[in-house]
Amino acid sequence: MARLTLYSTPGSCAVAAHVALELVAADYEAVQLDFSKNEQRAATFLRINPKGRVPALVTEHGVLTETPAVLLFIAESHPTRGMTALHNLWERAKACEFNSYMGSTVHVNYAHKTRPYRWADDEAAQAAMRAKAPRNFAECFALIEREMLRGPWVLGEQLSVCDAYLFTIAQWLPSAGVDIAAYPKVNRAVRALQEMPAVERVMAAYRAMPAAAIIPERVQQ
Amino acid sequence: MARLTLYSTPGSCAVAAHVALELVAADYEAVQLDFSKNEQRAATFLRINPKGRVPALVTEHGVLTETPAVLLFIAESHPTRGMTALHNLWERAKACEFNSYMGSTVHVNYAHKTRPYRWADDEAAQAAMRAKAPRNFAECFALIEREMLRGPWVLGEQLSVCDAYLFTIAQWLPSAGVDIAAYPKVNRAVRALQEMPAVERVMAAYRAMPAAAIIPERVQQ
Repeated sequence: MARLTLYSTPGSCAVAAHVALELVAADYEAVQLDFSKNEQRAATFLRINPKGRVPALVTEHGVLTETPAVLLFIAESHPTRGMTALHNLWERAKACEFNSYMGSTVHVNYAHKTRPYRWADDEAAQAAMRAKAPRNFAECFALIEREMLRGPWVLGEQLSVCDAYLFTIAQWLPSAGVDIAAYPKVNRAVRALQEMPAVERVMAAYRAMPAAAIIPERVQQ
Repeated sequence: MARLTLYSTPGSCAVAAHVALELVAADYEAVQLDFSKNEQRAATFLRINPKGRVPALVTEHGVLTETPAVLLFIAESHPTRGMTALHNLWERAKACEFNSYMGSTVHVNYAHKTRPYRWADDEAAQAAMRAKAPRNFAECFALIEREMLRGPWVLGEQLSVCDAYLFTIAQWLPSAGVDIAAYPKVNRAVRALQEMPAVERVMAAYRAMPAAAIIPERVQQ
């Protein structure tokens, strides 16, 4: 397979794809967009991803966006690299279920804290969304803890791309004022990932970015 | 494969799974929950889907939720039934990309019109969300028309579960005051689906429900 290129930015959900690429030891290059300079809205990037968002994964077949799709593709295109390859139809569907929930509910709930202007122009309305977001976000993690995470990993005994997604979105808990210790299974999975050399390499790559490039909370989408 | 059971409700995103089941001629039963009676929050249903949402697909392996996952499972478990089976890794990822966008962006934008109370308790804030939702919803369809729908179907020459999802969410355009005629490719695909006997059977099943069971706009989630 030809080398992959991942467009990402620090602190974003695209970190999940980055972690997954490291976990499967993919042949890839990561390009970090500077959201503080609105690089995700630059014409050069909009030609790659007209949505103006990350992640965007450039492959030999074309460009792929949306974290659940990017994670599915990374897992399936690297079937022998130590992560659950999701070869089994049911396990693939369960992985898709988890990742869809992360994308359409968990991430969306958090985004009401960081980007409420997407859904209302009125500033008081945005403040009301910001106020409720941590509670919704915490409820999602309670559901994950209680109903979804089989343990020790999301899909059970085998690490999968779902764990990369959980790890990434769990990084947002502190800024929402939610204590990960309330979710022991989530906490264990996230800590175990944090200690993996592959994950450490990804986090180090983001730390190496100039401070100004760290995604500001209210940057225009 | 053992008979599938789909939990659904009229006008919801679960119609996509229902249409997909008909299109692949699956062996299934559809159970319609009455949201006006809050049946999706009943203890009996919460044991099936702790999220208290539809769709929920009961299979011989267990319960599957989240539309993109349910659609993937339906397509992959019926590979010979005339729809794109998504056997190809790249096409499966592209289908997942489309369905993820429908779930995490298009549906979410519309839900700010029908269920803004999810994201803010304040009534003025909910009104502000309702006001902006149609514009966001319309922008999604513009992007689908311009960048995603290959034509004549979402994935190109072959009908797929993505079309069932597009058809379902396009049903919400009138109530958002958005004219589907602005999106000619979407319009053609939706009209072509509407004329299929499989889709007509699904719509007839929902029309046969008692009027009181039609999902009210502001029913508690």
